[in-house]
Amino acid sequence: MKESAIVLLSGGIDSVTTLYYANQQYELYALTFDYGQKHKYELELAKYHTRHLNAKEHLIVTIQSEIFKKTALVDKNLKVPENRTIDDEIPITYVPARNLLFLSYGVAFAESRDIKHIFIGANALDYSGYPDCRPEFISSFEKTANLGTKMGVLGNTLKIHAPLINKKKFEIIKLGLELGVDYSLTSSCYQADSQGKPCLKCDSCQIRIKGFKELGIEDPLIKKFNLLF
Amino acid sequence: MKESAIVLLSGGIDSVTTLYYANQQYELYALTFDYGQKHKYELELAKYHTRHLNAKEHLIVTIQSEIFKKTALVDKNLKVPENRTIDDEIPITYVPARNLLFLSYGVAFAESRDIKHIFIGANALDYSGYPDCRPEFISSFEKTANLGTKMGVLGNTLKIHAPLINKKKFEIIKLGLELGVDYSLTSSCYQADSQGKPCLKCDSCQIRIKGFKELGIEDPLIKKFNLLF
Repeated sequence: MKESAIVLLSGGIDSVTTLYYANQQYELYALTFDYGQKHKYELELAKYHTRHLNAKEHLIVTIQSEIFKKTALVDKNLKVPENRTIDDEIPITYVPARNLLFLSYGVAFAESRDIKHIFIGANALDYSGYPDCRPEFISSFEKTANLGTKMGVLGNTLKIHAPLINKKKFEIIKLGLELGVDYSLTSSCYQADSQGKPCLKCDSCQIRIKGFKELGIEDPLIKKFNLLF
Repeated sequence: MKESAIVLLSGGIDSVTTLYYANQQYELYALTFDYGQKHKYELELAKYHTRHLNAKEHLIVTIQSEIFKKTALVDKNLKVPENRTIDDEIPITYVPARNLLFLSYGVAFAESRDIKHIFIGANALDYSGYPDCRPEFISSFEKTANLGTKMGVLGNTLKIHAPLINKKKFEIIKLGLELGVDYSLTSSCYQADSQGKPCLKCDSCQIRIKGFKELGIEDPLIKKFNLLF
């Protein structure tokens, strides 16, 4: 019998690819978060992929948006930066402690179901410099989770998997295509409209465009939305 | 001007005492969690104390109860153990990864408001052996939170305070009385009724009874509910 794993799933390239990656070996469970993000369209895409892969359970978790302040991904008064040069600075699209909170939900959900494997699509190469996407955070979190859970102290160790953490975006897309991901059913844009149409200007769109370009193939969203570059 | 601090607050002896402790030095913010616990009466007590101390913000955070399974604090089909001998075993009242999740909410809330201090009433002496109440978990969490947040990586270090972690229950009550806590407005019972009347039989009631006994004073809940021992 297959072991089970929980995947933290948005509708973006990284987490969807991670879902298909985990599906090779594990029975799938997924958690998707509705935290007041502007790009709420991703929730529908997450539902599509868990249905497509017959996940055993997919829970949409609501996190009250009042928690988060000073982030352009949630606050309607803060504009998502466009055509920004991506440098070492942590941009205003950073959501305070997002992956810490998402992973902690993953651990509570996992331990409640006797599941030891948690997958996250965090990526620390083609990214916006978010501290909670770095390998040192992920491994420290794993250690903390094992100290703070019954599973952990009884030696039934929780494992946090971040299989994409050291991959370039084009490598992630290449991997996903091999695993059968339909990238026309993913959304990366921080301010996608209600149909999922991307702005092509935010950091996340820029990183996506670069990834497809480096791989030498056309992003299927271009045809889908009849986009011009 | 006073610095600000966030207190993770239920309506129990430990977190209420922690709130009054933090109030000596900090402007108060508080987070209280509604996670489907049977003893929901505590939420009203938490509201009383934050109003009494003029907390700047008190948010009741809802965590979907579907997250948690196999815990007698949430699952109505699992009975809270009564008259149990408290030993080294982690009992069925353990809630998977509860403090990990509560602290992570604390960090997201704190960083969103530029607050560096988070207080938790965790206690590892007179307790039920929950792994997420131990000092090694708290200090590992603090390290992880600083690795996974913008505040942390910019050197504006988050500090997790657990001032009661090495105190006996009677010492906590003694401290709280000095700080003006009205313990008739606290609730410890895992299965308190909708008016807050305790069962006197669960671990948490037993630990409370022992604490007041060791201090040599009467628990004000005895008069309030006309209880017989």
